[in-house]
Amino acid sequence: MIRQASTTLSFRPAGPGLQEITREIASWTAGTGIRHGLLTLHVRHTSASLLIQENADPDVRSDLERFFRRLVPEGDPIFEHTAEGPDDMPAHVRAALTATSISLPIVDGALTLGTWQGVYLWEHRTRAHRRDVVAHVIGE
Amino acid sequence: MIRQASTTLSFRPAGPGLQEITREIASWTAGTGIRHGLLTLHVRHTSASLLIQENADPDVRSDLERFFRRLVPEGDPIFEHTAEGPDDMPAHVRAALTATSISLPIVDGALTLGTWQGVYLWEHRTRAHRRDVVAHVIGE
Amino acid sequence: MIRQASTTLSFRPAGPGLQEITREIASWTAGTGIRHGLLTLHVRHTSASLLIQENADPDVRSDLERFFRRLVPEGDPIFEHTAEGPDDMPAHVRAALTATSISLPIVDGALTLGTWQGVYLWEHRTRAHRRDVVAHVIGE
Repeated sequence: MIRQASTTLSFRPAGPGLQEITREIASWTAGTGIRHGLLTLHVRHTSASLLIQENADPDVRSDLERFFRRLVPEGDPIFEHTAEGPDDMPAHVRAALTATSISLPIVDGALTLGTWQGVYLWEHRTRAHRRDVVAHVIGE
Repeated sequence: MIRQASTTLSFRPAGPGLQEITREIASWTAGTGIRHGLLTLHVRHTSASLLIQENADPDVRSDLERFFRRLVPEGDPIFEHTAEGPDDMPAHVRAALTATSISLPIVDGALTLGTWQGVYLWEHRTRAHRRDVVAHVIGE
Repeated sequence: MIRQASTTLSFRPAGPGLQEITREIASWTAGTGIRHGLLTLHVRHTSASLLIQENADPDVRSDLERFFRRLVPEGDPIFEHTAEGPDDMPAHVRAALTATSISLPIVDGALTLGTWQGVYLWEHRTRAHRRDVVAHVIGE
């Protein structure tokens, strides 16, 4: 019979960049006992985002971080929203360019991540923040 | 018992930029009576998109609009698809850089938006268009 | 009664660019017999992505490809992850800028795609790869 579950998982990234959260997500999902269904994640912030990316070479994550920092730099005179610091508006733009919610099918008791895929919380602010991710699963 | 509902909500943005649609989305969701579940939104166009972003300082929205207009400018000689006007192909690219569908868990009768999050329809064309957003909810 | 189904659809794009997969997706969905519900697609790779975009003028797809190749060029000295070839890290960035998972409501037996929308698998690597897309549907 189809049923569902949800929770809020809190993380505190040490600083900007991609923090892997695959284990926490997979562990909570397994604990629900739902072995076939759909997992949805939603980050409740506008200056952090979610990303499914390569979990092998850590250079991929630092290259991503560096590319996005150059694409959306601090101190850009185009920005008028500067009251919350020079890193705030670039963080909003980087969040807009990536994802606030992602969905992942669950098959045979496992997330259908590819061999090289991990789930990441992407912190775009300079200072450490607590980041809440809502997880919802529906299935059986 | 798990059940579902869907509808099409139509909007007519006055012009380009981010139009908040949180109230319409939340109101329809509440009307379904589903208090725990998953909401999915899908915009049925390729030159408008959906975004969850900050709902406090309106400068965030104008900064986002300005940044995306500079990143994907009109009149870029790289574009060959110009028959529908100079604003059409940039609109497609901006839509590709953001999101066509987003999902949001519903917990205790409310969308799990963060304190500073709103749901936005992002119009990328210059001229006003009617924009249809399909909303689907599943839960109980 | 609410039920669900899932499968893995494999594609082999001839090369980089947008390959339409609407027909395969719609055909599998119709075969499940679920006429009202939610379809979720997830690509199990980090150098390919999913996109809902215009299905009319093919210039839109070539313009998108050209824009993204200029925005994230090969040979950028910012990249340290080069062991898998000069096209690998740009592919990861382009995937991060687009989507790994998308969701689409199903109403009256059809995907709620707009008139001009198609579902695309976007290959970002130069060489041909097999690409697996997990499809999940829940509904009735």
